[in-house]
Amino acid sequence: MLKKELIIVKVGGNVIDSEENLFSFLKKFHSIKGHKILVHGGGKLATDLSNMLGIEAKMVDGKRITDAETLKVVVMVYSGINKTITTELNAFGTEATGICGANMNLLPAKKREKGNIDYGFVGDILLDKISSTEWQKILEQDICPVVAPLTADAKGQLLNTNADTIASSIAQALSQLYSVRLIYCFEKDGVLKDPNDNSSLIEHITPAEYLNLKSEGIISKGMIPKLDNAWEALRSGVDKVLIGNALYIEELTTSEHKTGTLLSL
Amino acid sequence: MLKKELIIVKVGGNVIDSEENLFSFLKKFHSIKGHKILVHGGGKLATDLSNMLGIEAKMVDGKRITDAETLKVVVMVYSGINKTITTELNAFGTEATGICGANMNLLPAKKREKGNIDYGFVGDILLDKISSTEWQKILEQDICPVVAPLTADAKGQLLNTNADTIASSIAQALSQLYSVRLIYCFEKDGVLKDPNDNSSLIEHITPAEYLNLKSEGIISKGMIPKLDNAWEALRSGVDKVLIGNALYIEELTTSEHKTGTLLSL
Repeated sequence: MLKKELIIVKVGGNVIDSEENLFSFLKKFHSIKGHKILVHGGGKLATDLSNMLGIEAKMVDGKRITDAETLKVVVMVYSGINKTITTELNAFGTEATGICGANMNLLPAKKREKGNIDYGFVGDILLDKISSTEWQKILEQDICPVVAPLTADAKGQLLNTNADTIASSIAQALSQLYSVRLIYCFEKDGVLKDPNDNSSLIEHITPAEYLNLKSEGIISKGMIPKLDNAWEALRSGVDKVLIGNALYIEELTTSEHKTGTLLSL
Repeated sequence: MLKKELIIVKVGGNVIDSEENLFSFLKKFHSIKGHKILVHGGGKLATDLSNMLGIEAKMVDGKRITDAETLKVVVMVYSGINKTITTELNAFGTEATGICGANMNLLPAKKREKGNIDYGFVGDILLDKISSTEWQKILEQDICPVVAPLTADAKGQLLNTNADTIASSIAQALSQLYSVRLIYCFEKDGVLKDPNDNSSLIEHITPAEYLNLKSEGIISKGMIPKLDNAWEALRSGVDKVLIGNALYIEELTTSEHKTGTLLSL
């Protein structure tokens, strides 16, 4: 049986930080036809608010340590962004519902165990426990879930959770039921050889090329977990993964490869 | 035809401000059987956060003036409380969904027109435009909506909206389909003759008695809009309105009048 198409978009970077950019992106996202899910990050707003409140942002290896005070801030900030996005989409005419992993246990998670680093209130998704039929129920009502980067454990403890991983986890769980295209979009045109030059776009990457690019230092920092999530998604049955510019979101959803970096095994 | 029962609870006051009180209340709310809706206020948290950020809280006649900066704060704070409540209820086993008036246009509103006072980004609910069947769809899936005190206008502008009025508006719209009991609960035992003495509880108030109590100054300030909302609800077909202590929420839902202030026409 031919599977229905599902587009999962993760939007982050400074698209979230600017009201104008976010509005332009959402207007374009609204015009995407068919089943779709939007996962958003928190941008710099959580760090900004923490700074204003005098809560020191603790980072280790580019990862935020979420202590109790920081958790309060990220819950507020991410939930507020979630509400704003949902409301704007509804106004455009996309029937959207703002959720996070805690809603109806859509993304079961557990608090990350302490290893060398104690990440605090950070959630790791229990991929095997995601109920794809619960997600399907929402999608088949033609409702677009807007997902904040938060999950909860079985006791109801909210947990800060990486938005890239959330998008990849949903994509993997739903690839049994849908032909899934996963799109990571932000303010740049894709994976760039020179991060400051959109014309240096790498149009296509395979896992072998990825290893080379990583060893040459061309792919580094935040792009590494994004790409690792992408390979995992492709290996688990996700149809296509693209990384590209949020302003070209419509082009990123077409069957031809018009823009962005296409990842394939 | 006998209507099904629906319990609408508005919780506010310092029940929201304290994590322990909120947890105790939610545990009891979870045990309420049948269809139920929870509307929450924001407590003092929005004012606290505004103060910490150096945004001056502007109040006129006990009503918050919501300028653009304050709107950002209340959206974050109310959405964060909404997420926390929803997550805790889910952990107890109540299938809850966190929403506000902006979701699926559940509470159509418009920005309050400037009169003598410009209230800023404050929403007035368009009672006639509430779709009771949209609410019914959620309730008949045995899902408990948890409603944050926010609405949006047709353009997608989020608006700060009084939680008491939200509870009363939902109660009125759904009284066509359900036998509705509306419960306003907070940290006190009900309407008190002496606000500091729970033993001075007024067990029963009619509109005539209300006018006397108001002219004697026994009912004043925040209690006035709460009671005005209650009379409006009763006149529009809501079955019962009670005001009482959040810790006795189970007793407030029983058919006998065991605790709290019962309002009747």
